Amino acid sequence: MDQFFTRLFDNDGDSQLPPGFKFHPTDEELISCYLLRKVLDGSFTCRAVADVDLNKCEPWELPQRAKMAGKEWYFFSKRDPKYPTGLRTNRATAGGYWKATGKDKEVYSSKNSCLVGMKKTLVFYRGRAPKGEKTNWVMHEYRLEGKFAFHFLSKTSKVGLRTACLEIGVPLKPTCEREDSNLKVK
Amino acid sequence: MDQFFTRLFDNDGDSQLPPGFKFHPTDEELISCYLLRKVLDGSFTCRAVADVDLNKCEPWELPQRAKMAGKEWYFFSKRDPKYPTGLRTNRATAGGYWKATGKDKEVYSSKNSCLVGMKKTLVFYRGRAPKGEKTNWVMHEYRLEGKFAFHFLSKTSKVGLRTACLEIGVPLKPTCEREDSNLKVK
Repeated sequence: MDQFFTRLFDNDGDSQLPPGFKFHPTDEELISCYLLRKVLDGSFTCRAVADVDLNKCEPWELPQRAKMAGKEWYFFSKRDPKYPTGLRTNRATAGGYWKATGKDKEVYSSKNSCLVGMKKTLVFYRGRAPKGEKTNWVMHEYRLEGKFAFHFLSKTSKVGLRTACLEIGVPLKPTCEREDSNLKVK
Repeated sequence: MDQFFTRLFDNDGDSQLPPGFKFHPTDEELISCYLLRKVLDGSFTCRAVADVDLNKCEPWELPQRAKMAGKEWYFFSKRDPKYPTGLRTNRATAGGYWKATGKDKEVYSSKNSCLVGMKKTLVFYRGRAPKGEKTNWVMHEYRLEGKFAFHFLSKTSKVGLRTACLEIGVPLKPTCEREDSNLKVK
């Protein structure tokens, strides 16, 4: 990877990509190349994935928080534990909440077929559970597996507009066991 | 577009893209951003599309001639007129020939809905017509419309392997009327 591609990968600029070039990561790339790197180094930044607190943003505010324009937006976001000693995650915002749907999907390495992480699908509801009103916003949340099993990552999309959101968790300590983190794509 | 993205667009390097970044152009981008630019300036080069003579390459030789790795390869290639004064194109190679299939598709501008070009689908046959043996190699060939109607571009893909080929025609003279050109993606 030469110098300017290193800049593409690492830097915080807001430049447009040339025509035809897009950020279209696979689930495996999101986990192995972005979430893992962020989990190991909380100061890691890149051109495609912005840091954001998903509990403080409504879905429709996320596009303007993203680093790259498009119909999918990618974010690192720290997991917010629902209770200090528990593993449940708080996914509420001021205006609603993200609710899991379907079954978590396993993500495997294309090189050695090892399980590298899990992908959870979430839908946004306005209001408060259990009376929330379902919206078209969908998020896919990814988490690492194996020795990093307590770190998380997720991806979301807005069905109606074909938008998508990814949320990437960031741990403060690389090997903490209960201080989980989220990686989300939106 | 800042300096290093300009380099990404213009230069001839063989660097790998960072994880998740891919060249996934739309038909419109191929025509309006690449074929048109090449037609207006035959010396135009870019990181994603290589110059090649498609009549001198068998389909399976094209991946190694491409500028970027992947399952789709993009090429500029001059149209080879079948007869000096005619509009028919010679699409034969030493080992076979590309044969049109289906109906040409119109490509419109997403900005103003104007017709910007046409997309033709071709399949590669080994041997000589009409006894050629059909293969899985498919090409999509694009051409400009309007005042550049005599310049061409095409795109191809290998169905079995999900590969695709684009062939981009290059005119020697920007405004020639019968010296057509091809843009092909493979």
